[in-house]
Amino acid sequence: MPGPESIGPQAANSVGIVTPETVQVPVPAGGLELEGGGRLPELTVAFERYGDLAPDKSNAVYICHALTGDAHVAGYHSPDDPKPGWWDQMVGPGKALDTNRYHVICANILGGCKGTTGPGSISPENGKPYGSRFPDITVGDIVRVQHDFLKHIGIDRLEAVIGGSLGGMQAIEWAIQFPDAVESCICIASAMSLSAQALAFDIVGRRAITGDPAWAGGDYYETDQVPAPGLSQARMIGHITYLSPEMMTRKFGRERRDDKRFQVESYLDYQGGKFVEHFDANSYLHITKAMDAYDVEEKYGSVEAALERVRSRCLVVALSSDWLFPPEQSLDLSIALLQAGKDVSYCELLAPHGHDAFLVDIEHLGELVSTFIANLTRAPSTTSAPPAAWVTEPWRREEDNLIKRSVKKGSRVLDLGCGNGQILELLARDHEVHGLGVDIELEHVIDVLGKGIDIFQADIDEGLAMIPDKAYDYAILSETLQVVRQPRTVLKEMLRVANEGIVSFPNFARWRYRAYLTLFGRMPKSRTLPFEWYDTPNIHLTTLKDFLRLCDQDGYRILDLTCVASGIFGKLLVRLGLKNLGANRVIVRLTRDGSD
Amino acid sequence: MPGPESIGPQAANSVGIVTPETVQVPVPAGGLELEGGGRLPELTVAFERYGDLAPDKSNAVYICHALTGDAHVAGYHSPDDPKPGWWDQMVGPGKALDTNRYHVICANILGGCKGTTGPGSISPENGKPYGSRFPDITVGDIVRVQHDFLKHIGIDRLEAVIGGSLGGMQAIEWAIQFPDAVESCICIASAMSLSAQALAFDIVGRRAITGDPAWAGGDYYETDQVPAPGLSQARMIGHITYLSPEMMTRKFGRERRDDKRFQVESYLDYQGGKFVEHFDANSYLHITKAMDAYDVEEKYGSVEAALERVRSRCLVVALSSDWLFPPEQSLDLSIALLQAGKDVSYCELLAPHGHDAFLVDIEHLGELVSTFIANLTRAPSTTSAPPAAWVTEPWRREEDNLIKRSVKKGSRVLDLGCGNGQILELLARDHEVHGLGVDIELEHVIDVLGKGIDIFQADIDEGLAMIPDKAYDYAILSETLQVVRQPRTVLKEMLRVANEGIVSFPNFARWRYRAYLTLFGRMPKSRTLPFEWYDTPNIHLTTLKDFLRLCDQDGYRILDLTCVASGIFGKLLVRLGLKNLGANRVIVRLTRDGSD
Repeated sequence: MPGPESIGPQAANSVGIVTPETVQVPVPAGGLELEGGGRLPELTVAFERYGDLAPDKSNAVYICHALTGDAHVAGYHSPDDPKPGWWDQMVGPGKALDTNRYHVICANILGGCKGTTGPGSISPENGKPYGSRFPDITVGDIVRVQHDFLKHIGIDRLEAVIGGSLGGMQAIEWAIQFPDAVESCICIASAMSLSAQALAFDIVGRRAITGDPAWAGGDYYETDQVPAPGLSQARMIGHITYLSPEMMTRKFGRERRDDKRFQVESYLDYQGGKFVEHFDANSYLHITKAMDAYDVEEKYGSVEAALERVRSRCLVVALSSDWLFPPEQSLDLSIALLQAGKDVSYCELLAPHGHDAFLVDIEHLGELVSTFIANLTRAPSTTSAPPAAWVTEPWRREEDNLIKRSVKKGSRVLDLGCGNGQILELLARDHEVHGLGVDIELEHVIDVLGKGIDIFQADIDEGLAMIPDKAYDYAILSETLQVVRQPRTVLKEMLRVANEGIVSFPNFARWRYRAYLTLFGRMPKSRTLPFEWYDTPNIHLTTLKDFLRLCDQDGYRILDLTCVASGIFGKLLVRLGLKNLGANRVIVRLTRDGSD
Repeated sequence: MPGPESIGPQAANSVGIVTPETVQVPVPAGGLELEGGGRLPELTVAFERYGDLAPDKSNAVYICHALTGDAHVAGYHSPDDPKPGWWDQMVGPGKALDTNRYHVICANILGGCKGTTGPGSISPENGKPYGSRFPDITVGDIVRVQHDFLKHIGIDRLEAVIGGSLGGMQAIEWAIQFPDAVESCICIASAMSLSAQALAFDIVGRRAITGDPAWAGGDYYETDQVPAPGLSQARMIGHITYLSPEMMTRKFGRERRDDKRFQVESYLDYQGGKFVEHFDANSYLHITKAMDAYDVEEKYGSVEAALERVRSRCLVVALSSDWLFPPEQSLDLSIALLQAGKDVSYCELLAPHGHDAFLVDIEHLGELVSTFIANLTRAPSTTSAPPAAWVTEPWRREEDNLIKRSVKKGSRVLDLGCGNGQILELLARDHEVHGLGVDIELEHVIDVLGKGIDIFQADIDEGLAMIPDKAYDYAILSETLQVVRQPRTVLKEMLRVANEGIVSFPNFARWRYRAYLTLFGRMPKSRTLPFEWYDTPNIHLTTLKDFLRLCDQDGYRILDLTCVASGIFGKLLVRLGLKNLGANRVIVRLTRDGSD
């Protein structure tokens, strides 16, 4: 049980009691012009900030909140405030967005109802709420207002901008609209535009509000009613989309309450009812419309033209069970960034909750974000001791040596199945290469991010379609060929995306395996092939001879070939030129015929 | 371009002009008592029927329609009727439900608004529409009314009952409530109960109707308005759930119309608007409530108790992109039927449209349904010629012989990776076994159904959790062990679900492979192993010796061992007892130690 110091404002990892602030941001004479053509005569921004701003102002992190969020990200508003800010798990001393290290800021968005100018604000023009006169806003406007506000309080550059859902759209827009103001961009459970299905849900939700007689065309502020039933209905629809079906089943199943109503009905009722108490229907309409209309492609002419502008290092995080902003949309964004030649890392987190998971499923998200943001630039290696792998697997020294003597300084290197990123780190240190890892394991994603290197979480067997032709000088496939399902395709893809490939694999024609099979009549095992036939990950074993034959057949030219033998006899065989008999590992550098 | 005869009522495969019928079904004095306790003073049923009823009345097929369907399944109501019935693609001469062969009937469901007694019908008690006085109905009531109606028109037994979505729930309920009246049950894109998410959508949809002031507590029939906005809103929500997200993107994407509205908005508007013209809000409320409340487990105490009653042969079809009735729910139903020892086949069709696909994606669904229904009882084999496989793959004769001499008459046999079902067909013919095939390929599912044998579409590598312990006397794993990802687990599972296993695999220790590897230094290839290392499906090769060692280790006892050799030398080696050196195939019968 957590002690009294571990929760609440007095907890060591809480930002404590926080004070909301409000600032009047100056607008040009004639008002702030919006992307849709409307104008706002004044701009008030409500915000919170935690952690000290460094003297050189280099440590500011801006959080973009989602549809119904607000500026109150962390901490408590009073000593007996029962609930902390909406992302308190992520923000505080020692947390992922460590307020001992970063100056964290969040402002309520334009069009909102939590202190920043929105449809419920009083218009200075007539002293009445804007209501139906509030102009259309866009995600571009929302971000532009954030930028102007930050400039006004003296912050010109952000170490990171981060957001989930609509907040992720703002983060993307920041990186596109203000490329020089954003060092890194973290985009969680988001997309470059909403899917048709997500649009449809928003449309039906808005219809519920505008169909509510109490909405009165948007001018209900001075009547004695609010469109609560309509807003509640919209919120109920929204809530269904925020949860994964699995989580709904787990939370409610088909359980009924005493009054025979399904639990899920009373949950939705509760959510709808609670929402109307603290959210404004017009804000809901304006913000969802801005979200629906946001479309990187449409706004900038093409995705390429938009992302071409980006100068931030990007981290894109998808949530596995999110069906409102499904992982494919995060993947699309990541691929587009990659294809635009930008520095991007991509990761899909296993998150059973659904879209809401970025608010609740904090474990790996925090680790991912904090590792990324703490290693934006690669720290110089503190050690030049030989990598541990050289000791446990001595042939790796040969592999590293071949790689090091092959790879030119400053080149671009792709490591397929990069593991903990050891090769890329070596190359980055000694050869100043620009590397990208590809690996399926989350653990490896975090390892590689921790080395300041980008990594794309992907299954090599699913193809490398995300990588453009010849995007890399070298691609490395270390001890991976024999575990993939389609080794021929992987080789082909490797030599499509890179000019040269460096491949290592165990050689099944090694004399010991031949002897083992021949003499014992059993599937060979060794230190190189330590698995039983029934649990081996090595599902496509090959021999040096077979490999060379495939290279010949598919038009690959061998540029360099190293055979590693173990034991005196194997080494002797290799020295005698009997490589296929002697080698237990083969390391090959190859290229497409006709390329150079 | 189709000629004029290929569409419309005059087309050769159309049932032509059809005439809706209405019948008054007698109810007991005091009215028809419903499961919820309400009573109906009268029962009118509107229906259509196509194709002749056989003199022995053995060919009746009943179609259960879904939420907003009706009795008009096929054909046209007039020569210039622009649109045929809702399942015209499935029903007609030569179609899947072939009206040259079957007498096909469908009636509008209880509570509907298309001619069968529903909330908009005139109550004989006061000559006014029931409205708010219409009693709660259940899926059980709906099916019971169908049963009474069919009895009334002289049909006591159905060759098949078939339905999709809510229609599938009715089909299940038929098989449980009237086990002796249903020879076969086909359940498409359905479930034993709705998921929490599907409940949630229905709840929000109903809320839109009951929140519409025009609904007037359900008594709007005699007012001058109908709750059209509410019903339209409910329909819009429903429509989103009927389409897969992929299909929504494909159909509408983010396209906008000239008036800047999204296409998807105008589509939803159109669907909502069209719906209110022909559907009644109270029917929508009553039927969705019946659907929400349906729960096989709750109704019958347990799923086991319910399915214990079933005597039909069942075909359960899931649609891959259906997220309203997701494939897992069809799988759950199939597994529960299998665990209750019932005859069930299961198949998941690749269907990009989503839940609606059972109405539109007809190709394989029709083939599946027609093959199943035409082969409910296994036709006696017309030939006793040796199977084709004995000629192309002579070792199969040995395998079949071992299987035939091992398998006792009338026993239960599971064939894992059953292919076209040839082994099960042989065993059914000569040994009267009760067989079940398991295979991943749709093509094989249809082959096996065509032999009158049940098949479960599944990936053996995903486990056999659907099959209870010791449910089978024998399990066959023919040439499949080496292609699975987890051979050890598959063996273990096989001997969990069956008392004995019969396994065949290629022997990698065969002298030719040893010689090939040793002399040529390349991965062996042969007629038995015809693939290149990079494209072989044989990802876990083993030897006789290795296999026997694993059996020993995992506690399996060998009951019978046949080694098949090809070539004089191989045969000689086997005869000399050098099996591991001589055999190119091994066929083993085995059991768990301690079992008999």
